[in-house]
Amino acid sequence: MEAAESGRPGPAASSSSSSSSSSPPAAAEGEKTGPAAMRRSDRDGGADGRNVGFVLVHAGAGYHSESKAKEYKQVCKKACQKAIEKLQTGALAVDVVAAALIELEDSPFTNAGMGSNLNLSGDIECDASTMDGKSLNFGAVGALRGIKNPILVANKLLSEAQKGKLSAGRIPPCFLVGEGAHKWAVDHGIVPCPPDIMTTKFSLSAFRKNRRKLELAEKVETEMIQTKKRREVTENVSVFIFTLSTNVTASLDTVGAVVVDHEGNVAAAVSSGGLAMKHPGRVGQAAVYGCGCWAENAGGHNVYSTAVSTSGSPFLACEDSVLGGVIVLRCCRCSMDSESALNTPALLVEFLWSHTTESMCVGYMSTQDGKAKVNTHISRLPPGAVAGQSLAIEGGVCRLRTSVN
Amino acid sequence: MEAAESGRPGPAASSSSSSSSSSPPAAAEGEKTGPAAMRRSDRDGGADGRNVGFVLVHAGAGYHSESKAKEYKQVCKKACQKAIEKLQTGALAVDVVAAALIELEDSPFTNAGMGSNLNLSGDIECDASTMDGKSLNFGAVGALRGIKNPILVANKLLSEAQKGKLSAGRIPPCFLVGEGAHKWAVDHGIVPCPPDIMTTKFSLSAFRKNRRKLELAEKVETEMIQTKKRREVTENVSVFIFTLSTNVTASLDTVGAVVVDHEGNVAAAVSSGGLAMKHPGRVGQAAVYGCGCWAENAGGHNVYSTAVSTSGSPFLACEDSVLGGVIVLRCCRCSMDSESALNTPALLVEFLWSHTTESMCVGYMSTQDGKAKVNTHISRLPPGAVAGQSLAIEGGVCRLRTSVN
Repeated sequence: MEAAESGRPGPAASSSSSSSSSSPPAAAEGEKTGPAAMRRSDRDGGADGRNVGFVLVHAGAGYHSESKAKEYKQVCKKACQKAIEKLQTGALAVDVVAAALIELEDSPFTNAGMGSNLNLSGDIECDASTMDGKSLNFGAVGALRGIKNPILVANKLLSEAQKGKLSAGRIPPCFLVGEGAHKWAVDHGIVPCPPDIMTTKFSLSAFRKNRRKLELAEKVETEMIQTKKRREVTENVSVFIFTLSTNVTASLDTVGAVVVDHEGNVAAAVSSGGLAMKHPGRVGQAAVYGCGCWAENAGGHNVYSTAVSTSGSPFLACEDSVLGGVIVLRCCRCSMDSESALNTPALLVEFLWSHTTESMCVGYMSTQDGKAKVNTHISRLPPGAVAGQSLAIEGGVCRLRTSVN
Repeated sequence: MEAAESGRPGPAASSSSSSSSSSPPAAAEGEKTGPAAMRRSDRDGGADGRNVGFVLVHAGAGYHSESKAKEYKQVCKKACQKAIEKLQTGALAVDVVAAALIELEDSPFTNAGMGSNLNLSGDIECDASTMDGKSLNFGAVGALRGIKNPILVANKLLSEAQKGKLSAGRIPPCFLVGEGAHKWAVDHGIVPCPPDIMTTKFSLSAFRKNRRKLELAEKVETEMIQTKKRREVTENVSVFIFTLSTNVTASLDTVGAVVVDHEGNVAAAVSSGGLAMKHPGRVGQAAVYGCGCWAENAGGHNVYSTAVSTSGSPFLACEDSVLGGVIVLRCCRCSMDSESALNTPALLVEFLWSHTTESMCVGYMSTQDGKAKVNTHISRLPPGAVAGQSLAIEGGVCRLRTSVN
């Protein structure tokens, strides 16, 4: 592993639709820029050009208590470090993004992989997907049981598809669900995991509480339903149940990452345990093409490579308030030394996170951070802003010196 | 049911990217218009304005032999008639489109519901989805076994979601897969169907032939793989296997419908048994939000309501040739009597079908056709055009007299 110089992502821009500015990222220093604006930091740059790259991860948009803040930041830090290690060995974006996701899934604090929400039957069923910006290939799993790292299966589906057709010219699958997905994973060398190992003390305790809440809610509804129609009942009961059901619907829901590698390829990935107490077989946006993640290299008239990973609300919500979050990265070729005669090739990487939830925990790191610390941060809506009705946007810019143009 | 007057959809426009014109729709009379152009027919109009509507269906893009042409047209005819019956009783587009799909699924000749392709394990697993242009609600099922009409489950998911939240404020599912989807369907009153009833003599015989082809292909590949890499092998074997494998990959793949109702609401639906010999658990575009179908009523700056149902290639194909088909409908408010002082409110409905496959079987009908015949048609690429590299587009226009503006 080469020693990278100590350039680091530049100052973050922060804004909010409620027009009061949200707190700046804890780890981002330097000047703040205006709302939604991005600004190049002159402090960027530095490495020798081989195996550069950048990663941005999030551990869920939702509500992060101050007491758990440290743990979420730690998860993001580990995910970033794992990604950077992979990048420095020359791995491509699509495999780097999977490495970051594995760390996020393995944490018992996130709602993905280990420690995922339990469904109505008390089982864990996970969704995950990944997209490679170079080939535009996509891999996804839905309602997958008994696999510790769903992203590994999505990544494997993608890489198998890139090998070309199956025997007799059959088109390889890119989206598998349920039992069939489990079987395919095991057939492709992914080790199955006994379901009870993925269940944590916390997720089991939340399930038991939620089950009691549901029983209570249904009892109340059954009593009310004798005189009213379901829609009216649901509206009324929601008010009544609201204080009870916070954990049912408002928990963290997804983890994700976006990466750019030394060739300038981008990739994105997303993984989720889905809603607590969801119906078995329910597939959420994390598994859906064009919904959970997107990655597309520059090409044609488009000078930017872009990678996006989303989190949050059901993908077709006609909800009063839309709770969600997103991480975005875009990059383009630029010169490292714009003011000198030298024309060192570089990648300009712009990145942001945005959420309508109360908070979102993110981490980011570039290869040029070397052994310097990862940037981790819990982004919060500004004081007084209402979740689902306000939007926080923060981000930054960095330049990576490359050897190729 | 009221007697509708005998207006019928106007002449069809036909074109092809290979710039030789394809044959005009068998059932479309009158002048032909230029490539891709749409022309209002002066012969349109007539009904008393209550419960008007229009339906366009297709029974698959692929290859329709002349010997089976009659059966495919018959299926489309029945689907159109069922839709028109529903429209005339005042049903809304989203339920009308489901009624049309049920007829298409029930045919043993289509690859949807009854008679679907068998997967690698010899089972039927179906995908279906539907979208309501008024509410933008979406319902979908993937890899669903043992339900004769998958579209019924998708429709039920959509209508249940429109009733509002579940107990304790839980968000209702819109996309269910596998066992969980089956259980939800049965819990919601949809009768399960023993799997062997959905298997036809034809689909079983195709499965047995395909299994033998696969065994042969795999034997040849195993022998060749000792000296070459998989990609090269696959390319070579494809050539060798091509004459054997036509039925594996080139069969009809999807059915679909688009509808506009008397209120001007649009809806779309799609249903598919998926690829023959697919991996169990594989979900195709028919179940994927934004891929298999779309419907969106006019609103805001958009004066057109639009409904689309697609068929064909895997949704992320980097294939040499893209085989697919689409049916599209758009409509807007207009006046029935543009040249007179009267200003009778009407709906202008433009519709088209397009495919890169050798052929596509479609049917269309408006309430104003009354007891007149349905228009059914097998659209074919023009002579000499190569499937996957040429495109056929045909369509038409009709006006429906309405009572509301």
